[in-house]
Amino acid sequence: MNNKPQLFTALSPALLHLYDVKESIVVIIDVLRATSTIATALFNGAAAVIPVDSVPHCIDLGKQLGGITAGERDGKVAEGLVYGNSPFEYPRSFIENKTLVLTTTNGTKLLHMALNSGAPGIITGSFPNLSAVSEYLIKEKRNVILGCAAWKDRFNIEDTLFAGAVVSRIKDHFNINCDSSNMAEGLYREGENDLYEFMKAKNASHYHRLTGYGLEKDIRYCLTADIANVLPLYDDGKLIAAGL
Amino acid sequence: MNNKPQLFTALSPALLHLYDVKESIVVIIDVLRATSTIATALFNGAAAVIPVDSVPHCIDLGKQLGGITAGERDGKVAEGLVYGNSPFEYPRSFIENKTLVLTTTNGTKLLHMALNSGAPGIITGSFPNLSAVSEYLIKEKRNVILGCAAWKDRFNIEDTLFAGAVVSRIKDHFNINCDSSNMAEGLYREGENDLYEFMKAKNASHYHRLTGYGLEKDIRYCLTADIANVLPLYDDGKLIAAGL
Repeated sequence: MNNKPQLFTALSPALLHLYDVKESIVVIIDVLRATSTIATALFNGAAAVIPVDSVPHCIDLGKQLGGITAGERDGKVAEGLVYGNSPFEYPRSFIENKTLVLTTTNGTKLLHMALNSGAPGIITGSFPNLSAVSEYLIKEKRNVILGCAAWKDRFNIEDTLFAGAVVSRIKDHFNINCDSSNMAEGLYREGENDLYEFMKAKNASHYHRLTGYGLEKDIRYCLTADIANVLPLYDDGKLIAAGL
Repeated sequence: MNNKPQLFTALSPALLHLYDVKESIVVIIDVLRATSTIATALFNGAAAVIPVDSVPHCIDLGKQLGGITAGERDGKVAEGLVYGNSPFEYPRSFIENKTLVLTTTNGTKLLHMALNSGAPGIITGSFPNLSAVSEYLIKEKRNVILGCAAWKDRFNIEDTLFAGAVVSRIKDHFNINCDSSNMAEGLYREGENDLYEFMKAKNASHYHRLTGYGLEKDIRYCLTADIANVLPLYDDGKLIAAGL
């Protein structure tokens, strides 16, 4: 053994309790599309992104803070909200200096679980901010849990691919005694040359749900590394761009 | 859509509740070593294998039925039991016509969960009986859940590899809208040329636990297809070789 910190991957929110959340930085991963959109909004100058778990909560908080309310249900902007989940809705010209109140299901649920379990640090991760996440985790030298938001607690390919991308970047700095992490890295290695085609080939259920809504462009964006390379750090109820 | 039944893979007992157990045949997978040993004992003529969840229960039932009591804790025969978990302990000369009362942790827990959730059929699967399992599932034409016993609810490589082997054999007969199943098949395809070396390369935690106990020979056996090709069917508290 050595003094390197531990790295684990929780493939579903239903598996988070198996890991030592209290002693770990938890990376919330919801690649399609919540955490990709969060990175994009912050990269483009949003003052903060507040993740909330329900449409009514989103509406209330939007009024209270004068924020942009956003969220989708079944591929459409949810009733009572104004914007959707697509990263393309949040260019700098629109979102700079504004607060985005975003309701998502899987990602927000996992974030609140990590929070309630006493995680000492919570960040969000996605391909658009892969390098920022990886560099932060290396620098912090603390235990890490890569938390996949999954789909209604079911394992999904895209969040696992991102976990694998992080593992491949940072593994030399950690002790990894975790089959999930090793599997995730292998999955990423298998698909890294063309993640979009890999998703299609794997028949990923979320790929099919989103392309059914005409969102191929979103998927391609959400699988592109470092195009919104910012570090979203959760603090006091909101995500802010760390260091800005 | 078509009329094919559904196939899902539950990567951990903690994810079993996400699937429609009541309408599915559940395959209990505990490759190292419970379900490999169960297949071996039945292949070699055991009258039945009774999986139990604790050492005291194993001792009680062994006395009551005049059966062989077996089980390990931390790599050694558990105190009060007579035999261990290795498939090599159960040649025909020893086990024929006897009842094996076997205590395992992960596999037995999952089996009881499937039973309590009303699964209409439960079988056990491992590489030694890969073909028997695959042929049965194709023949039955019912929904299937490949249930990985995992390790204390944590995902493991070896059970997922076996799930992937089954998926690769039977997928043309099922609708698969399940990222876990697709990932498992990819993992198996990656490793199938040499599963033993693949396990080592993946740094599988269980591989290291068992080789620490000097069980390389067991691992090689448990990764060998069809050397104990029998179908263990759970009925009325015990596993019997179907059709015998």
